[in-house]
Amino acid sequence: MPDRMVPRSAAQVQATSGAGAPAPARDVYLDYAAATPLDPRVLSAMEPYLTRCFENPSAPYARARAARDAVEGARADIAHLMGAKPDGVIFTAGATEANNLAFAAADGGVVTDAAEHESVLACAQARDAVVVSVGADGRVDPERLCAAIGPTTQLVSVELANGEVGAVQPVREIARRVAVVRQQRLAEGSRVPLWLHTDASQAAGSLSCNVTSLGADMVTLSAAKVYGPKQVGVLWAGEGVRLRPLVLGGGQEGGVRSGTENVAGAVGFAAALSIAQGCRAEECRREEALRLRLERALADEFPGMVVSGPRSPKHRLPGLLHVSFPGLEARRLVVLLERRGVSVGTGSACAASRMRESHVLHAMGLPPEVSAGSLRITMGRQTSIDDIDYAAAQIADAVRTEMRRTGLSQDDMLGRAGGLAVGRRR
Amino acid sequence: MPDRMVPRSAAQVQATSGAGAPAPARDVYLDYAAATPLDPRVLSAMEPYLTRCFENPSAPYARARAARDAVEGARADIAHLMGAKPDGVIFTAGATEANNLAFAAADGGVVTDAAEHESVLACAQARDAVVVSVGADGRVDPERLCAAIGPTTQLVSVELANGEVGAVQPVREIARRVAVVRQQRLAEGSRVPLWLHTDASQAAGSLSCNVTSLGADMVTLSAAKVYGPKQVGVLWAGEGVRLRPLVLGGGQEGGVRSGTENVAGAVGFAAALSIAQGCRAEECRREEALRLRLERALADEFPGMVVSGPRSPKHRLPGLLHVSFPGLEARRLVVLLERRGVSVGTGSACAASRMRESHVLHAMGLPPEVSAGSLRITMGRQTSIDDIDYAAAQIADAVRTEMRRTGLSQDDMLGRAGGLAVGRRR
Repeated sequence: MPDRMVPRSAAQVQATSGAGAPAPARDVYLDYAAATPLDPRVLSAMEPYLTRCFENPSAPYARARAARDAVEGARADIAHLMGAKPDGVIFTAGATEANNLAFAAADGGVVTDAAEHESVLACAQARDAVVVSVGADGRVDPERLCAAIGPTTQLVSVELANGEVGAVQPVREIARRVAVVRQQRLAEGSRVPLWLHTDASQAAGSLSCNVTSLGADMVTLSAAKVYGPKQVGVLWAGEGVRLRPLVLGGGQEGGVRSGTENVAGAVGFAAALSIAQGCRAEECRREEALRLRLERALADEFPGMVVSGPRSPKHRLPGLLHVSFPGLEARRLVVLLERRGVSVGTGSACAASRMRESHVLHAMGLPPEVSAGSLRITMGRQTSIDDIDYAAAQIADAVRTEMRRTGLSQDDMLGRAGGLAVGRRR
Repeated sequence: MPDRMVPRSAAQVQATSGAGAPAPARDVYLDYAAATPLDPRVLSAMEPYLTRCFENPSAPYARARAARDAVEGARADIAHLMGAKPDGVIFTAGATEANNLAFAAADGGVVTDAAEHESVLACAQARDAVVVSVGADGRVDPERLCAAIGPTTQLVSVELANGEVGAVQPVREIARRVAVVRQQRLAEGSRVPLWLHTDASQAAGSLSCNVTSLGADMVTLSAAKVYGPKQVGVLWAGEGVRLRPLVLGGGQEGGVRSGTENVAGAVGFAAALSIAQGCRAEECRREEALRLRLERALADEFPGMVVSGPRSPKHRLPGLLHVSFPGLEARRLVVLLERRGVSVGTGSACAASRMRESHVLHAMGLPPEVSAGSLRITMGRQTSIDDIDYAAAQIADAVRTEMRRTGLSQDDMLGRAGGLAVGRRR
């Protein structure tokens, strides 16, 4: 079976790439921020619960105990990896539901930033929310964010890392400031709670998700982003937070999230997070080297290219490269690249199929002409140096093809990029 | 791998049944209403989407198309099996979420009955709801139910079949009456909508879930009840119904249910429902024969036993037997039976672990002393005649053991059962 676990072979791509089209020399997947393949070890861990151990965890007989123990074991493992207590870990059907559950805990005002995932922004918009802007590198200014906290604010929500430009947010510093406001409220006799929530789903493969070092009161994680199963997530909430259920019923997950448990999913998530946290340091180094190699190759060729997101390695995800080719259309580049076997994203996958302007790039103040030609390229555990070199050549070729077709010169691109161009940054 | 798909072998049970305890002669699972094992054909259908075809369905490149097509194909297959249009099918994380989503469509009053699943009752209790009682056999009286519809009622919710005593509800007749009220409202110029929702999750293995013949506006289904994966469900809604999302975000499922799709889960559900509907008629006959065989064996032995639920085969699930032994405690019987390798339920699995009195039996007016000694025994595709004969012998032995321990005679049991006793029914 292991042959079915590896990324699709060239032969399989040929079979699906349409009548008469020659098969690409390589099949390079570079959209790990949108979806990660299930790790074969994770699938192995899930298999008993997809086959013989199928019982309802709430059933009263001995046979069901294995299912119940599996869910509780997974909860304990995930809690341990987060440096938290098991009873704070609530299983959900993915990060989107976990984010919604975090927001449901707040009655009053909300403060968040404009570069958040759509699920956070949609929850914020459904409430009394202040949405602060982000810097040109996609990072939140903690001072500015916390200045927006008013007397009725109950929730501050800032993601740990942005999935589109890779900015790592200063969650710890925000936590420090939120704690100060909380102290002030206590001193003033105010009983309005103030919670800090962080969506760490895009970050969990690269950063620690230890709740104590993050200083957050609620943390969202997603299995699908760490080589685990889709539609499996977690919201961790600290002891002081009173969660309010979105879905009512049999009272599973401490009454916060009803419905018969996804036993295999919970077990798979625990295995995936354990593997991800275990290989994190090494994988970060590896992916960073790949990203810089790709960035250098493209920057050498296209001085008018724009690279977005923070430059300091401390402030960014290691394996995410966001590049824009001003004057070109991302949609066309994606199509040219898929014919060459290279799969890259354009923005967050949720919005990508609609091909509209990215709200994150807009929030960063990137001119529409620049953001229209943006590719989000994310590498992962299966990405090799050869993959990167192949992708670099194919991306360069696709960009040149589009420049020829539209009559765009290197100087034109450089002009449109202005001060953002990599050629001017040196 | 097929050896891992079959119910646990006696050897495996031995390994988990504790120090020194002899292995039971047989391992008989009789709680298919709480959980069904994943059909090996369903797992095979899911496998490509658990391995190589892992892409995000919303991603813009060719490779992601297979994932997108798989979700849409599953939606179309399920719609076809329901006699409905694909765009009315919304994937959820199980029946509980689907029921919650159906209730979220209503602003105004709700009418439901006291024997519904906890997810429906919890949603009803969170609103302005009239909860009508059910008959002694667990069935709803359509006239009585529809008499509770007031001018502001927007939703009527009645399950297609009850998972605890197996009563099949007269959904079609209720639909006819709801349609009359709707016509009256139109004639009176009222713009208050009135929808009929039915939770068909316990019924889909035994009854048709064709939306036209049901006459419902919303139908809930669960993959986990038809030998499909856990935490995968569907809410079908007709064209006139405006669903309101419980979870906000990237806008998947037509904006009604955000979050990256559970591709493998959707594919698995379609395969499971197709198999279930295909073998439904034959399986119903088989399970009914097994149920009657078990009922006869136990009734011959214990004239004071009480069998609950409708007697007519037209009005009940074929493979569900609900029996009570007045004067005994179900919890003790379950423990004795699990030692003998027989797994049976006591009520709906959600509530079962809490071992409190069943709300369904209470609604049917069963005396607490009778309901306290209740077993819910449900058979399924893997249940053989030998399993039933073994279970009958073990249940009889467990009941006799408990009668001896408590000093309860057959006459005592008969007296406590009163007119409900099978021995008096003949």
